[in-house]
Amino acid sequence: MTDLSKETSIFEKKVSRRGVLKAAGIGGVGAVLGASGLGGVLALSDATVTKGQSNDIVPFYGANQAGITTSPQDNLYIVSLEVTTDSKQDLIQLFKEWTEASALMTSGNTVGDTSTNGNLPPKDTGEAVGLSPSNLTITFGVGPSLFVKDGKDRFGLRSKQPAELVDLPKFPLDALKKEWTGGDLCIQACADDLQVAFHAVRNLVRMARGKAVIHWAQTGFQRTKNADAQKVTPRNLLGFKDGTVNPDVTSKSALQKSVWVQKGDGPDWLVGGSYMVVRRIQMYIEVWDRSTLNDQEATFGRHRDSGAPLGKQNEFDSADFEAVDETGRLVIPETAHMRVARGDGKHSILRRSYSYTDGMDTKTGSLDAGLVFICFQRRPSTQFIPMQQRLAKNDKLNEYIVHRGSALFACLPGVQKGGYIGETLFD
Amino acid sequence: MTDLSKETSIFEKKVSRRGVLKAAGIGGVGAVLGASGLGGVLALSDATVTKGQSNDIVPFYGANQAGITTSPQDNLYIVSLEVTTDSKQDLIQLFKEWTEASALMTSGNTVGDTSTNGNLPPKDTGEAVGLSPSNLTITFGVGPSLFVKDGKDRFGLRSKQPAELVDLPKFPLDALKKEWTGGDLCIQACADDLQVAFHAVRNLVRMARGKAVIHWAQTGFQRTKNADAQKVTPRNLLGFKDGTVNPDVTSKSALQKSVWVQKGDGPDWLVGGSYMVVRRIQMYIEVWDRSTLNDQEATFGRHRDSGAPLGKQNEFDSADFEAVDETGRLVIPETAHMRVARGDGKHSILRRSYSYTDGMDTKTGSLDAGLVFICFQRRPSTQFIPMQQRLAKNDKLNEYIVHRGSALFACLPGVQKGGYIGETLFD
Repeated sequence: MTDLSKETSIFEKKVSRRGVLKAAGIGGVGAVLGASGLGGVLALSDATVTKGQSNDIVPFYGANQAGITTSPQDNLYIVSLEVTTDSKQDLIQLFKEWTEASALMTSGNTVGDTSTNGNLPPKDTGEAVGLSPSNLTITFGVGPSLFVKDGKDRFGLRSKQPAELVDLPKFPLDALKKEWTGGDLCIQACADDLQVAFHAVRNLVRMARGKAVIHWAQTGFQRTKNADAQKVTPRNLLGFKDGTVNPDVTSKSALQKSVWVQKGDGPDWLVGGSYMVVRRIQMYIEVWDRSTLNDQEATFGRHRDSGAPLGKQNEFDSADFEAVDETGRLVIPETAHMRVARGDGKHSILRRSYSYTDGMDTKTGSLDAGLVFICFQRRPSTQFIPMQQRLAKNDKLNEYIVHRGSALFACLPGVQKGGYIGETLFD
Repeated sequence: MTDLSKETSIFEKKVSRRGVLKAAGIGGVGAVLGASGLGGVLALSDATVTKGQSNDIVPFYGANQAGITTSPQDNLYIVSLEVTTDSKQDLIQLFKEWTEASALMTSGNTVGDTSTNGNLPPKDTGEAVGLSPSNLTITFGVGPSLFVKDGKDRFGLRSKQPAELVDLPKFPLDALKKEWTGGDLCIQACADDLQVAFHAVRNLVRMARGKAVIHWAQTGFQRTKNADAQKVTPRNLLGFKDGTVNPDVTSKSALQKSVWVQKGDGPDWLVGGSYMVVRRIQMYIEVWDRSTLNDQEATFGRHRDSGAPLGKQNEFDSADFEAVDETGRLVIPETAHMRVARGDGKHSILRRSYSYTDGMDTKTGSLDAGLVFICFQRRPSTQFIPMQQRLAKNDKLNEYIVHRGSALFACLPGVQKGGYIGETLFD
């Protein structure tokens, strides 16, 4: 494993993914320079060029982590990890390495020099060489079990565990599988290229060897741009738009109210962080596909094509929850997903979900497909949990879905250059 | 299920995916027109507009099926089906519906009008509404078991089964799982958007209800464009370029020699078709990641970054298989993948593979990731089969991979408008 602490700085050796490709293309100049020991210099200048030219880089450093209020990318790769080391120092070292590597990868660089010293394993696994940064974001979270597991204060962090960071309750109709539930740590990588997201997670997991192992891993996809390349609300695999009612991510006050943990909410180390709920929701798409359009629209409470609330014309029109049709029945039914999810309308969550498909469900013979539901919030106890309690009881959508996986993580606050993700928790 | 035979023509009702979105956006004009029965007219003109504007449509009709020599797209969704009907007429009807639907979807249209008659299930499942055609191709194949299964001539097609269309032999080191092997029919959808490829397969599978069921299903990904949006040879998850040595798809004679079935090769119905081999190859990426760069490059016989043959500078330089280093050893080792795959260099295949990742391999605790190896050829008995026999015996790459799935399909010849895929086989 790369021991970054023994190197002057990984940043001085960085090689841009584009730089490697370009160098290799020009009659092997890169290889020649690499052999003469000048590869690092070439790479450094090239990396600068890449950054100057790329308009698909999301900054890694900042007050909050990226990948939460970032405009959703097209692909997700999310993994949950179990920590195997007993050493807090190991954990700190891992987060330091993850921070440096994430800063490199999100800016379109490889994790380390890819071309020198053939007698060692390459520092970077190479499959993203030449690819665009693809708006890659990498978001880290910690689960309840990192603090206390089987009653044991694993890393002396028990006093720092927020009251909100506890296992989600079992909801009615939950059919959770252990292999899709929980975890000590979480890495969410999102990018407009799955190969870039995969590369990021794989290299971070590789650095964790001997310290943590994968618990579950899930890819997701969606399309956030329409045929005219305009950003649109993506559709889920039931054909409906998903994420229309979200807090305004450009409004600082909306995010303070609903997404970012604030001073006084709990321990200070999480201020500027956010709680992430992940639910693996299988959709019975073949059952759904046999239901009528009217049924489908009544299930969501929205028109399928436009995404408008029933009775309205446009996606972002406000819903009229009191409206009745000529027979006196509610236009948006009592059990419509959007009505039940809304509740009293006082608490919102930031949805950031992806579709998944994982071959065939051998038990049913249908496609195993559905939603990796992901949402961020300031306080699960007043946001996701009561919402899901209402949905599990009353949502008409329950005829077509089942929750197979569940996890809650506290996404750490962002860091500035020179710091590391997790420093407020571990220091 | 949609019975297209009872309609004047599905083409007269087509609604473009972009058209639906646009109509819905303009104050719900589409919904109003739809209710008045004019939706079809609106849609038809809009569909024309879409086609005129889109530069990401691959024509569905032609002498050969698309998706074989088509420049590889970024995403794959491939399914194998088992036919459950005993009726040849059912099969013919299915292929007719598949043909019409495929022509619509590949040109960016929905399978049917999405907005009318709420009392019926929508003809199109809707998740691709508004999305670009994304260079979607849909390629159909038939497996050996469609002809004869358990000794039974299922559809009176026994006399038409080509001698080449038989189960692949068991190769040394094969560790095939039944759930990833074989199948009566195959649908390969490729697109630059996984949501578009998923949508295509899902809607085709839906039409097969009562006639066929899914046997296996697999997504794949790769990145075929570099950071400068130029088409490049994609890299596999071992970090190496995959598909450098392919027949020239712009050369008619090269394709006649290696890819398209020719008159006299076997039954006439397959002339203009091609044999597709699919192998699900799991990669032990964590073992690979611990090997040195020198080992990795010796395994493939290529430089990782440039893709050049060992000892050369550029990806497309010819390999020197005789070259030795200063110690007298072959520069491209005897067991290098590219040397063993090449054999005597007289037979080539058209590689068109994708990477896959499917969560965790619960047996090993590693990521289940690897290659959906796909290749096309004129004659498996002289192309893929002897190549794989050599590889299974001598390839150094075998330390890092294992074959978990296998299938052979005869991809049907292309059709012209008015015909249907499979007509030469069934008529």
